[in-house]
Amino acid sequence: MAKKVLILMGSDSDLKIMNDAAKALAALEVETEIRISSAHRVPDKTMTLAREAKANGFGAIIAGAGLAAHLPGVVAACTTLPVIGVPIQGGAINGVDALYSIVQMPKGIPVATVAVNGAYNAGLLAAQILATGDEALAERLVTFRENLAAEVKAKDEKLQEIGVEAYLNK
Amino acid sequence: MAKKVLILMGSDSDLKIMNDAAKALAALEVETEIRISSAHRVPDKTMTLAREAKANGFGAIIAGAGLAAHLPGVVAACTTLPVIGVPIQGGAINGVDALYSIVQMPKGIPVATVAVNGAYNAGLLAAQILATGDEALAERLVTFRENLAAEVKAKDEKLQEIGVEAYLNK
Amino acid sequence: MAKKVLILMGSDSDLKIMNDAAKALAALEVETEIRISSAHRVPDKTMTLAREAKANGFGAIIAGAGLAAHLPGVVAACTTLPVIGVPIQGGAINGVDALYSIVQMPKGIPVATVAVNGAYNAGLLAAQILATGDEALAERLVTFRENLAAEVKAKDEKLQEIGVEAYLNK
Amino acid sequence: MAKKVLILMGSDSDLKIMNDAAKALAALEVETEIRISSAHRVPDKTMTLAREAKANGFGAIIAGAGLAAHLPGVVAACTTLPVIGVPIQGGAINGVDALYSIVQMPKGIPVATVAVNGAYNAGLLAAQILATGDEALAERLVTFRENLAAEVKAKDEKLQEIGVEAYLNK
Amino acid sequence: MAKKVLILMGSDSDLKIMNDAAKALAALEVETEIRISSAHRVPDKTMTLAREAKANGFGAIIAGAGLAAHLPGVVAACTTLPVIGVPIQGGAINGVDALYSIVQMPKGIPVATVAVNGAYNAGLLAAQILATGDEALAERLVTFRENLAAEVKAKDEKLQEIGVEAYLNK
Amino acid sequence: MAKKVLILMGSDSDLKIMNDAAKALAALEVETEIRISSAHRVPDKTMTLAREAKANGFGAIIAGAGLAAHLPGVVAACTTLPVIGVPIQGGAINGVDALYSIVQMPKGIPVATVAVNGAYNAGLLAAQILATGDEALAERLVTFRENLAAEVKAKDEKLQEIGVEAYLNK
Amino acid sequence: MAKKVLILMGSDSDLKIMNDAAKALAALEVETEIRISSAHRVPDKTMTLAREAKANGFGAIIAGAGLAAHLPGVVAACTTLPVIGVPIQGGAINGVDALYSIVQMPKGIPVATVAVNGAYNAGLLAAQILATGDEALAERLVTFRENLAAEVKAKDEKLQEIGVEAYLNK
Amino acid sequence: MAKKVLILMGSDSDLKIMNDAAKALAALEVETEIRISSAHRVPDKTMTLAREAKANGFGAIIAGAGLAAHLPGVVAACTTLPVIGVPIQGGAINGVDALYSIVQMPKGIPVATVAVNGAYNAGLLAAQILATGDEALAERLVTFRENLAAEVKAKDEKLQEIGVEAYLNK
Repeated sequence: MAKKVLILMGSDSDLKIMNDAAKALAALEVETEIRISSAHRVPDKTMTLAREAKANGFGAIIAGAGLAAHLPGVVAACTTLPVIGVPIQGGAINGVDALYSIVQMPKGIPVATVAVNGAYNAGLLAAQILATGDEALAERLVTFRENLAAEVKAKDEKLQEIGVEAYLNK
Repeated sequence: MAKKVLILMGSDSDLKIMNDAAKALAALEVETEIRISSAHRVPDKTMTLAREAKANGFGAIIAGAGLAAHLPGVVAACTTLPVIGVPIQGGAINGVDALYSIVQMPKGIPVATVAVNGAYNAGLLAAQILATGDEALAERLVTFRENLAAEVKAKDEKLQEIGVEAYLNK
Repeated sequence: MAKKVLILMGSDSDLKIMNDAAKALAALEVETEIRISSAHRVPDKTMTLAREAKANGFGAIIAGAGLAAHLPGVVAACTTLPVIGVPIQGGAINGVDALYSIVQMPKGIPVATVAVNGAYNAGLLAAQILATGDEALAERLVTFRENLAAEVKAKDEKLQEIGVEAYLNK
Repeated sequence: MAKKVLILMGSDSDLKIMNDAAKALAALEVETEIRISSAHRVPDKTMTLAREAKANGFGAIIAGAGLAAHLPGVVAACTTLPVIGVPIQGGAINGVDALYSIVQMPKGIPVATVAVNGAYNAGLLAAQILATGDEALAERLVTFRENLAAEVKAKDEKLQEIGVEAYLNK
Repeated sequence: MAKKVLILMGSDSDLKIMNDAAKALAALEVETEIRISSAHRVPDKTMTLAREAKANGFGAIIAGAGLAAHLPGVVAACTTLPVIGVPIQGGAINGVDALYSIVQMPKGIPVATVAVNGAYNAGLLAAQILATGDEALAERLVTFRENLAAEVKAKDEKLQEIGVEAYLNK
Repeated sequence: MAKKVLILMGSDSDLKIMNDAAKALAALEVETEIRISSAHRVPDKTMTLAREAKANGFGAIIAGAGLAAHLPGVVAACTTLPVIGVPIQGGAINGVDALYSIVQMPKGIPVATVAVNGAYNAGLLAAQILATGDEALAERLVTFRENLAAEVKAKDEKLQEIGVEAYLNK
Repeated sequence: MAKKVLILMGSDSDLKIMNDAAKALAALEVETEIRISSAHRVPDKTMTLAREAKANGFGAIIAGAGLAAHLPGVVAACTTLPVIGVPIQGGAINGVDALYSIVQMPKGIPVATVAVNGAYNAGLLAAQILATGDEALAERLVTFRENLAAEVKAKDEKLQEIGVEAYLNK
Repeated sequence: MAKKVLILMGSDSDLKIMNDAAKALAALEVETEIRISSAHRVPDKTMTLAREAKANGFGAIIAGAGLAAHLPGVVAACTTLPVIGVPIQGGAINGVDALYSIVQMPKGIPVATVAVNGAYNAGLLAAQILATGDEALAERLVTFRENLAAEVKAKDEKLQEIGVEAYLNK
């Protein structure tokens, strides 16, 4: 049976950004479950979600957090599933604090970090991970990439056709 | 009975720096216990140490970590004792990653952060915290400060007496 | 008698942020006094407030400042009470200047630093400090944390119940 | 048949760091192939390695680079296998340039970024990815984590037994 | 025959900024061609554009990109024409990521980097480069500079004539 | 009578750097007095030194400090003499913390900040300040600058004469 | 005769900020002259203004610039008058580029740097410099400082009188 | 006649780094002249070198500087030849100050910036610029690139042949 992806965030203020991960995975026909569970406010619930994820049919976890973003690391400490961390922009340091808090994990417990606010790419990465064991998904990913390329080519053709001024005003 | 201070770190590579906290507290006659317990490698043990700290006679916790430094925040999530965080210098980002990972805690769970590698000051701060309920310790802190002042004054007197060149070569 | 918390800032432009500390402490039934007193414009008044704080019944001081934020350090130099520093966001460097000016205190005089604009957490930290000598306050803090956890759990339940789209549009 | 991991770097000056990835994977009994292939000096060879990786039996690619580190992104653009990027410390900006060049990938082409010089964790992450389709590897990862935990616990026991001074001098 | 300048960008979201380069070159009577071609989504097309640029009559290439900005480096790897890189402001790191990704090119493949969003200056630089082999263009550049100087002098004269308040309100 | 320059630092660890200021002033025949006096450990002594500086014949004050460098700002708050701040390199943040703590002074109390470790330039700046009221010193400064220029010209002549290889090996 | 202060900027876009320097100096009855003169567009004019400043009755120069802010350094190279540099906020790097470009002057040619956008303080600093040779101005500065202190004290009294809520809503 | 490249630096302490530019150009048979001339200490000489460069047979200028690195911008203001700026690593801010001071040039006067300490690439870029009007040089550049590629390929072959351990110990 196809594996699902668990999408976690510590606060509902991150839901709008993190929903991009669900959208990317939906486009690739991967099932997701979105949960709010803070590493600091409800550590036990968070750790339980991480520990039971594999048994519950998840193949990867995406965790997003801002500021001193501990959620992805705490989750990664409680599972051997691949954990993808999404630093969320916000506060005075604007997400660089979250990036450092997620990517600079010490030896032994990796977190696969994507760009600040890069939840959409986190979804794609989760799909690429699941596709290592799911050839049908791997083929959907190839098609997805071809569509990306086609889009860029179409934009360039449009630009050559109508010129810069018209393009900027369209 | 006088309260103790629990000093935690995730790796024995931080022990030399973190021992400065114990030295500061020893100078102020506060009892300490030093434990190695990683937020990522042994999360349950770490959370248990934090959760039982108050019942075990501790009045404050000092937690030091480098890189994506989650230890102080994870500990703070599991106790209402004041938690002091010490960012440890190291790695390519040199401790600014640890500083951001410790000080930028989200609303609800504070960590009292000191300077990068500032374990000695963490010890003093823990003593100042315990002294809010321990007048004898408060008096020792006053004496400690007077000694600090006397030291600076003695250095200036020495400098005025022997001059810069002699002072630099002493 | 229960100790109070002194909340200081150098300029009334920081009052809106710093009032969050008072709100957190009010929620925990800790009495506060809010004063405007600049380290640079009225240094003597500021030092007097710090020096007399303990005798005036304060158990901790919260000091907030932006830019080259010297207020918390100057206050800490004049008292052995725990001093909590709040870096205030503002200016071209956006609060990282204030963070460095507050957290990087030299050996001997610590300041317990919280996140940029983290006045609310400063209030909680002050309460945690006073609670080391006030068991009733310690119990109110435990309840406060339980409420925090309950809030997060309620949000997750709501999300599971109504789904992402409905949650984002509510 | 078990999938292999391709380890790429643009210059042999990165080989010592990147070999840590091979060591982590060897410890988990995953086969690796290490190749030197620059995104800037031999772009065609690099793209061919990436494009043929899946057909050649690789399940994930680890790419390390310093400075304006384009290798992981260029590789990711040529495959739908998960690509793990390792920023290498070096030069005046010390690896933050490489971190930004790797993690901040635009929408559509993710790179799973680990800490600066975090090649060992890149190896573990690659194993966690392959383990989503390889239950025996998943079990070896669980054992690996248990060993990590046991190591930390043993260090703490040693510290409690012999004390700080002896521990630091051992 | 006078050489042209190829202006490349990976996404039409950069078109408004990059069009400044075309405007600067138009003012100096240098012909340009603007193309959308992403290093990550359509790497082959991008490399072909770069490889055929010299034969197609281009004397310099301007490439703009934001975030992990690989386009200028990838283009530079495929041509010996001078490549000018324009870091585009955007995202949480605001263009410093793009600056580092463009300017910190490793030994062997230089990119001539201008300021963040400095597409206008990129156009001028391209003209200065072409002028090393085109004396008429060199003379137009001298006139252009004289006009720049005259503008500044006129503004100062106006200010002296009408005063600050009037100048600010004009 | 010619005015003197007061050189202050909070710790004798800064004496070697700060002595450069005295050397620059000695070269320009300006009298100096060097004092160790910390803003945090002996605030009263520091403020008294600042408050009495003008009456004691000083025309400018140079204050150097590292980390959360409050000394220049505290001194500036206690005098209307020009105060020159020297950020001292050191600690994990390497002097950027000291730079921000000195240069980002709030409205009303300026500090004339020089480069990190720029004590020599601080001495020259103090001389330039005193020279606004001392024409003989102004003339010595002109000669000093001519010597600087002559030095650079002599080095270039030497290089043209002996060539790069010989110059690098001399 | 009382000396004047020359206020320079490279572009009229900086005039609004730089006018704060003139306002501060007007409040202290110091005469100013404001000129637009770019280091890059009209280098000769700029150097002439600097070289003739002393002879034209100026006692100090304030120069403001953004981005790669060379104006203060270029001016300082052409005069022995004290030169005060004002980094102007703007562009993607938000003024930190200008700060570094102004404060990090090499040995021999100091620039007295103030905070980003700190033109008002630059005016005060210029007055403090001129006051080293102008006792009447020195006295006006003392009064100015007393007024600053009185303002802060009045605000605190108001706050104590009406309370936080009323103060924030006034 | 083939054009030469002028290599400028403000201090002989930068000569060792800047000589890399001469080496790159020598490998491509481009003639160079290396001069020491500071923007701050000898501004007139520096501007004269820049103004006369074109008439003296130079086709491009490479200027290197550290700290508040004004040399490339000052040179660029005095010529319409392409000016390549090399930020030199050094001081507390380690070359990021020089990078910002060089790359963030305001509108109208571009500097083609390369990596911190990237003098070798500056030499290559100068050659690429001259090659826009010199087909023989363009051909030498193509050969140069082929050699770069061959070197990388040879290293990879060696690695495949002898293995990682042998390669690291060779």
